[in-house]
Amino acid sequence: MAKEFTDDDNDIQVWAESEADTIETAREELDAAGVEMSDEEIRDHIEVIPSPNRIKSGADGVFDARRRRGGIRTAQDLIEDGMDVGLGTGSTTAWAVAEVGRMIRHGELEDVRGVATSLQSHELAKEAGIPLVNLDAVTELDVTIDGADQYSEDEPTVIKGGGGAHAREKVVDAMADRLVIATDEEKATDPLDFPVPVEVMPDAREVVSKDIREVGGEPELRMAVKKDGPVFTANGNLVLDVDFGGLDDTAGTARDLEKIPGILEHGIFLDMVDTVYLGTEDDVDVLEF
Amino acid sequence: MAKEFTDDDNDIQVWAESEADTIETAREELDAAGVEMSDEEIRDHIEVIPSPNRIKSGADGVFDARRRRGGIRTAQDLIEDGMDVGLGTGSTTAWAVAEVGRMIRHGELEDVRGVATSLQSHELAKEAGIPLVNLDAVTELDVTIDGADQYSEDEPTVIKGGGGAHAREKVVDAMADRLVIATDEEKATDPLDFPVPVEVMPDAREVVSKDIREVGGEPELRMAVKKDGPVFTANGNLVLDVDFGGLDDTAGTARDLEKIPGILEHGIFLDMVDTVYLGTEDDVDVLEF
Repeated sequence: MAKEFTDDDNDIQVWAESEADTIETAREELDAAGVEMSDEEIRDHIEVIPSPNRIKSGADGVFDARRRRGGIRTAQDLIEDGMDVGLGTGSTTAWAVAEVGRMIRHGELEDVRGVATSLQSHELAKEAGIPLVNLDAVTELDVTIDGADQYSEDEPTVIKGGGGAHAREKVVDAMADRLVIATDEEKATDPLDFPVPVEVMPDAREVVSKDIREVGGEPELRMAVKKDGPVFTANGNLVLDVDFGGLDDTAGTARDLEKIPGILEHGIFLDMVDTVYLGTEDDVDVLEF
Repeated sequence: MAKEFTDDDNDIQVWAESEADTIETAREELDAAGVEMSDEEIRDHIEVIPSPNRIKSGADGVFDARRRRGGIRTAQDLIEDGMDVGLGTGSTTAWAVAEVGRMIRHGELEDVRGVATSLQSHELAKEAGIPLVNLDAVTELDVTIDGADQYSEDEPTVIKGGGGAHAREKVVDAMADRLVIATDEEKATDPLDFPVPVEVMPDAREVVSKDIREVGGEPELRMAVKKDGPVFTANGNLVLDVDFGGLDDTAGTARDLEKIPGILEHGIFLDMVDTVYLGTEDDVDVLEF
């Protein structure tokens, strides 16, 4: 998480990765505007925000106003005292996680516990100051807020796994009484056509690829960046990104994939979505299923 | 694999783990019978056999005459020159693996390659002298010979996973044009009621257990022997042994399990069996599906 200084009175908003750098940059802007403020006062105007360095879609995506608005509204609308909350990944979800942390720090929320869907969301939630419990400490969650690689306006199904963590994400998403996808309009497509991430046992990748072709998909082994060779998941497996073209029958495709031995989890989150929160140009839209 | 000396003329049959020990024991028996034989001649009468120390069911199970007869017949009937063969585990299958090795060494089989279903069967096949290739080197097998924890006389379905390797076993079994279960009558039950082994992500064990109870199963975490705490699979996961009572609807139960996030593979090998080879008291029965 990064740190952001906001002073609405003087129309100053700056951020940096560390608090020290944020204070320094804020001080420069305040000096330029002729405003006097102590370090203590500056600190009072600093909040934790998602760090663009920690988000797959990078700086532009994270600071997109739609995503910021969508994520914050999702947290404010849905999270209540005493809830156990699943916390996922994505540039909109990161704003929701930051907002939950802010509400806890400001005493607006009490007795909230988080369960992370992945190592990445664990780190985000920890930095946001949300008390975290292990996945094995709970068997139900009140709500999970998560991102998606693609969502549908016609069916309560999303595709996830672009980050390679969909096996654990599906567990945490399925545990929630209410799964809320926090996203923006750009991720909507009907029918869904994002290549379906499929986690496979390393040795089984060739035969699984053959089986996938037989049910109409074209698999591609996901290659790593900043590491030679393929991506390995947190579970030590490989990921095939499977192009099915448009998914006219998501249930059928999910079933086809579930029948193939050697596939550990696929990225079709079938009939799991309850609500989609969408940051738009000047508001937040809510889709209920 | 152990070594066995057989001299039918003098009705002598002895075995030991090493060739040296087998020769020594054979020498004692031959001396007692007043038979002269050089070390070279003794070696010519020695064959590789399954080692009871390497088989789950132990010495009695491995030397059971039914299993020996069933395993050897399975190999002799099914394995032909040029075949790619999946090699599994179990006390009957171990005899089939030993027999394939014997036939290769004696020039009765050529150009046979094996793919092991697990580390255990890999070691067995290697000791038997069968040329092995990696699972990722082939996408089809002519035949797989494997054991089962329980088989049915009414449907081509078995339960596997007592050894904790069913995820990879299912891949290799499914790759075969023909899956042959080498077993004995004691493993037959209708309906199947062996507790279904389910491989789970470690952190998901609690919520998966809850989900399993909701579809009528009673899960029990498999605990290790010779290691503190639970069994971990070769894939770093845990195993739940799930008691469903009698499985009146194997397809339905398999489907229920496949829908639960956090389950990586279950031990119901549904509609996969082509043939069952059964060692009986004085013959071998063959069940075709």
